Amino acid sequence: MKTYLDCLPCFLNQALRAARIATDDEKKVKEVLDEVGMMLKNIPLVSNPPETGRLIYRKVSEITGNWDPYREIKDKSTKKALSLYPSLKSHVEKSNDRLLTAIRIAIAGNVIDFGAGRAFDIEKDTAETLKKDFVICDYSRFKDCLDETDEILYIGDNAGECVFDKVLIEEMKKSTIYVVRNTPVINDATYEDAVKAGIDKVATILSSGTDAPGTVLKRCSLEFKNVYKNSRLIISKGQGNYEALSNEKLPIFFLLTVKCHVVANDIGAGEGDIILKRM
Amino acid sequence: MKTYLDCLPCFLNQALRAARIATDDEKKVKEVLDEVGMMLKNIPLVSNPPETGRLIYRKVSEITGNWDPYREIKDKSTKKALSLYPSLKSHVEKSNDRLLTAIRIAIAGNVIDFGAGRAFDIEKDTAETLKKDFVICDYSRFKDCLDETDEILYIGDNAGECVFDKVLIEEMKKSTIYVVRNTPVINDATYEDAVKAGIDKVATILSSGTDAPGTVLKRCSLEFKNVYKNSRLIISKGQGNYEALSNEKLPIFFLLTVKCHVVANDIGAGEGDIILKRM
Repeated sequence: MKTYLDCLPCFLNQALRAARIATDDEKKVKEVLDEVGMMLKNIPLVSNPPETGRLIYRKVSEITGNWDPYREIKDKSTKKALSLYPSLKSHVEKSNDRLLTAIRIAIAGNVIDFGAGRAFDIEKDTAETLKKDFVICDYSRFKDCLDETDEILYIGDNAGECVFDKVLIEEMKKSTIYVVRNTPVINDATYEDAVKAGIDKVATILSSGTDAPGTVLKRCSLEFKNVYKNSRLIISKGQGNYEALSNEKLPIFFLLTVKCHVVANDIGAGEGDIILKRM
Repeated sequence: MKTYLDCLPCFLNQALRAARIATDDEKKVKEVLDEVGMMLKNIPLVSNPPETGRLIYRKVSEITGNWDPYREIKDKSTKKALSLYPSLKSHVEKSNDRLLTAIRIAIAGNVIDFGAGRAFDIEKDTAETLKKDFVICDYSRFKDCLDETDEILYIGDNAGECVFDKVLIEEMKKSTIYVVRNTPVINDATYEDAVKAGIDKVATILSSGTDAPGTVLKRCSLEFKNVYKNSRLIISKGQGNYEALSNEKLPIFFLLTVKCHVVANDIGAGEGDIILKRM
């Protein structure tokens, strides 16, 4: 997805939120906004938003000296998600279509996003997502693709959300490589977060090599890119990964909750909608 | 009111919305955002937001060449408001407290704001405002002040809203000077808009001399400032005027609908609340 003009004020809002979480020093927060304001004119609209997100969150860390401002928030999200895990499993057990319910659960976990600036309540939003209609649902293509492959590349998004992903991974019953960000950016899941969610029990965890809040391929490691290119089924979670990979030609299924009007317009849905889309 | 850090991303959003209304040329819209981004670091937080608003909307006009982008929107708002005028008057007629109802109506008209970025429906919002509880209501002080004065300085805000103000002016039955912006900025009321709303039939219209989206005193004319300083009852409509005048020591009553979380926090209310406040 390209960068839309609407993304520019959003970058500034993201910088403000992140800086305030990273420091209590309002002068440093102002410095972040000043610097990000100056960066806007250099953002190429042909680039995807996580490429710029990367620069912005790095700037926040450089100025505040805090390189993992969301650590505590991420641990809290994981703890909360783990407490819901038994009830998520029970939802799958009771459902008519276990796989589709597990997909819904994985999408429900995608509300745990501190980058998008939307308030959320994990428990309440999960319950709502389990009842919501899909606006885009390429489920039968997904099942066909799943039947034909032995290995899944599962690109994770946020800490806490990993617990929800675990439910889907367990349901798919295939060898899975679970992809995390290389270093902390917003509340995106890193290796540490995936392990805390128990992903290491059900998948091989692989770093994408990037510190962008999305899988920006040109910033990814060669190791990741090799695995990626040879994948026959890729699951991509969340907006950041959608923004980074939506123009790719590989068999990617995007699982996400739509959290802003820009992604909503780009994908052909509304804010708050749940999506299972094969590009 | 000072400029809060939250105002900075909001300025960029305002620039985006205004530029898109002023031109269809996306390159010019981008240029506006680039320029406003560069301006952010020079905004003194001690200044009030309309001081910066003025610079931003001037920049939009300079780059797009459109010095009255909201002309059509303003005329439409006035037309719509005029169509509601008979029912507004009838509300006053039927009410137990005519003056308080007229104040509510004047506040209801304050939703017609294209600067704040909130969607609104004049008719629906008016009906709701007429039923809403005041969160801050210095009504008895207002009545006392009204009883003790022969002349009111009424500082208007937006085009269309003037029609709602007319209802209150008619109900107060005092000599009134109605203040408008000197030149177009957003959808703020100018002399032309006040006349179209029929304000000239019930008040003397005076320009504040400023092109800021609020009564920024240091940008106002000497003529206005003389009238202002000698006023014994000032009615100030809307957020822009609140932001510009909230630290003033004169007998100002602020009538507004709260439209953003920054003003909400500053005034001690919530978004969407209706306010009649004596500072």
